[in-house]
Amino acid sequence: MDYDILITNAMLLTDAGQKEVLPRGFLGIQGRKIAVIGRMADLPTNLKAGRIIDAAGGLVMPGLINGHCHAAMTLFRGLADDLPLMTWLNEHIFPAEASHVSREMVYWCSKLAAAEMVLSGTTTVADGYFFEEEAARAFREIGLRAVAAQGIIDFPAPGVPDPAENIKAAEQYIDNLPSDDLVRPALFCHSPYTCSPVTLQAAKRLATERHIKFFIHVAETSAEVETHRRQHGLSPIQHLRQLNLLDENTVCVHCVWPSAAEIALLADTGCGVITCPESNMKLASGIAPVPKMLAAGALLGIGTDGCASNNDLDMLQEIDSLAKIHKAVNLDPTIIPARTALKMATSSGAMVLGLDEVGTLRVGMQADIIILDLNQPHLTPFYTPDLLVYAARGSDVKTSIIAGQLVMENRKLLNIDLAETMAAVQKMREAVNPSLEM
Amino acid sequence: MDYDILITNAMLLTDAGQKEVLPRGFLGIQGRKIAVIGRMADLPTNLKAGRIIDAAGGLVMPGLINGHCHAAMTLFRGLADDLPLMTWLNEHIFPAEASHVSREMVYWCSKLAAAEMVLSGTTTVADGYFFEEEAARAFREIGLRAVAAQGIIDFPAPGVPDPAENIKAAEQYIDNLPSDDLVRPALFCHSPYTCSPVTLQAAKRLATERHIKFFIHVAETSAEVETHRRQHGLSPIQHLRQLNLLDENTVCVHCVWPSAAEIALLADTGCGVITCPESNMKLASGIAPVPKMLAAGALLGIGTDGCASNNDLDMLQEIDSLAKIHKAVNLDPTIIPARTALKMATSSGAMVLGLDEVGTLRVGMQADIIILDLNQPHLTPFYTPDLLVYAARGSDVKTSIIAGQLVMENRKLLNIDLAETMAAVQKMREAVNPSLEM
Repeated sequence: MDYDILITNAMLLTDAGQKEVLPRGFLGIQGRKIAVIGRMADLPTNLKAGRIIDAAGGLVMPGLINGHCHAAMTLFRGLADDLPLMTWLNEHIFPAEASHVSREMVYWCSKLAAAEMVLSGTTTVADGYFFEEEAARAFREIGLRAVAAQGIIDFPAPGVPDPAENIKAAEQYIDNLPSDDLVRPALFCHSPYTCSPVTLQAAKRLATERHIKFFIHVAETSAEVETHRRQHGLSPIQHLRQLNLLDENTVCVHCVWPSAAEIALLADTGCGVITCPESNMKLASGIAPVPKMLAAGALLGIGTDGCASNNDLDMLQEIDSLAKIHKAVNLDPTIIPARTALKMATSSGAMVLGLDEVGTLRVGMQADIIILDLNQPHLTPFYTPDLLVYAARGSDVKTSIIAGQLVMENRKLLNIDLAETMAAVQKMREAVNPSLEM
Repeated sequence: MDYDILITNAMLLTDAGQKEVLPRGFLGIQGRKIAVIGRMADLPTNLKAGRIIDAAGGLVMPGLINGHCHAAMTLFRGLADDLPLMTWLNEHIFPAEASHVSREMVYWCSKLAAAEMVLSGTTTVADGYFFEEEAARAFREIGLRAVAAQGIIDFPAPGVPDPAENIKAAEQYIDNLPSDDLVRPALFCHSPYTCSPVTLQAAKRLATERHIKFFIHVAETSAEVETHRRQHGLSPIQHLRQLNLLDENTVCVHCVWPSAAEIALLADTGCGVITCPESNMKLASGIAPVPKMLAAGALLGIGTDGCASNNDLDMLQEIDSLAKIHKAVNLDPTIIPARTALKMATSSGAMVLGLDEVGTLRVGMQADIIILDLNQPHLTPFYTPDLLVYAARGSDVKTSIIAGQLVMENRKLLNIDLAETMAAVQKMREAVNPSLEM
């Protein structure tokens, strides 16, 4: 057997940040890795493959990297729309979480999220929540690559009733997570306004010791920045800097309101930034200065955020929104070109998460690959892959391979019972809101 | 036979602007019209129907109204992205149109657009282009309701080589269009900067005589407004007002840059406004003051614009962008709530186009109905129809009925050969750009 899987007759976009495409090529996978890429004209005639996928009419590209999610929050999808962030959080989301988050809820609702993500082209997710070991279990079952971060907050939290135990609980989470290249542990401190300096530093120290990523929501709203400045005399990003938390293993999520000096700081410290355009738009948090952060040399990826605030986990819609909104507010149609958005959603996102082995299609890289069906009215005609950003949607992704394993074929998920998962979440939803307006 | 079509077991959203839904209802159609709507509990047992559609797990709602399109421009989808408006228009789109627009091109490319629109839930389109009789033919064949407007411009145009003949050509267009409730004629003057006052007034006079709508692009960019003011001493909207062109049968498309006084004028004259958020974002034209126009009492619908600038014709994505972008730029999450966006895409859009008989589901109205499949991961759980705005996408629309006729069932278009249409456009695309970068 030469290859476990051989994809043929495909248009190949090996690096989403580059203009070049291979109009008709093949790609062979051995085990978890890409073993060969070439032009169909050069395909040896006597090749043996365990499985041949004819991708004629399709586009083969690196799977999408969702840099920020709270997968379990599918349960609260659309529960409370069109409300101010703090009303939404304090009067709806936090109470709903207090009543409904359980080990079982995290497992099933993360599984639903994983299904939605695979169905829309995501092959890696950076997730953060409580009972994160259950989310990790769901990701592993479906075959989704993940950086699964245990949530840390200085309040009683699901699974961590005593916040004095939150670092200990995080350490146990890391220790107990099954060792597996596909799903890696990380830590997620909720924010500078919900975690004390002591908690932040202890969490970062633990992350550094274990060589894992440290995530934090920061500068999401102008109110957060102003309040923090009033209470501490520093902005939240300056505060993180002062606590020595900013380095190349820290990922700052949102960064909607950094000052010019803070943009330079994000770039200079080498920390990663994840922008969540649709969540920031819908919650009216603002519009992150993505063009300025990119110009400063910061490393940026894209995330959907949890689908209580988005309300979906479709990365193709996220890059469409990202590319368009910055054009509109800057009155400059050349800002965030399509390929920049695609790169952020693939190779740059992978770098933010410290996953050097995914994000492009090259021999020796992990085989994290999606195949889109271009043979559809809304993708006809097809001049360049820029169209993926402006016209493709999650449902155009036909096939997904992660770490060399087929996880979706012809839009059918291969590793889970989708109906069972949807029914489990539907049942929990009835407990959240049994008497709908309808 | 009691009903030609009977839809059962559906969640019914009869008026997208209202909170109420009927959790489990039925809807009967006789001929072109809705004959009955009720709760399943009240469904008579001995009903006879030509065709029963069991919509269990689905949501039945009014079809979407795309208030602005240039359908034939599917040929130029993604031909030239991320460029300034005038570069895009003068160096790419106008030359491509000069070389490639023909009677045959308008027919096939409009047919492709119509297919894409029906597949994503649109049941009525307001279109404007040259050789519009060919677009009208394509719409009629697929069964899409349309206000099909012949384009008027003071330059040599496809089918109208001598601009001195443009009003005469428009009159012939109206006279020759087959009389049909489904596809109605209208006129579309390109803009105040491409049509002289004489042309504008002659076109409006003709539209008034024939009791049809008069469309015009206006105040799309700040450069347009400034140039017009410099050349004429008036803004484009003031100019239209001075020429007596603003009344309830005029539809102003874009209106990205109206002053406060002009917003009042748009409302007071009763003219319709179509906002095209994704086109305005992608071309960096700006963000129309939709919340202010609504507050002033103007009548607003939503359009996709042509897919050379968008690049798709998916109204569900358009309402998502509309609802989100105004929240982000106004830093107010309560602005343009989901239902306002849905109303603009249904009943308000119908009113802008003068189509009182569509836009809501009521007995006696035309049966223009779509059924969405809610039984999908990204729409689970489902608390309220607000989710349609923030999570649904075109591919969720399963079935479409227009004027009582089934035009799509289980995502299969019933009246056209889709493969033939896509192949025809694909062939034309090769002439537009035979040597791609790929």
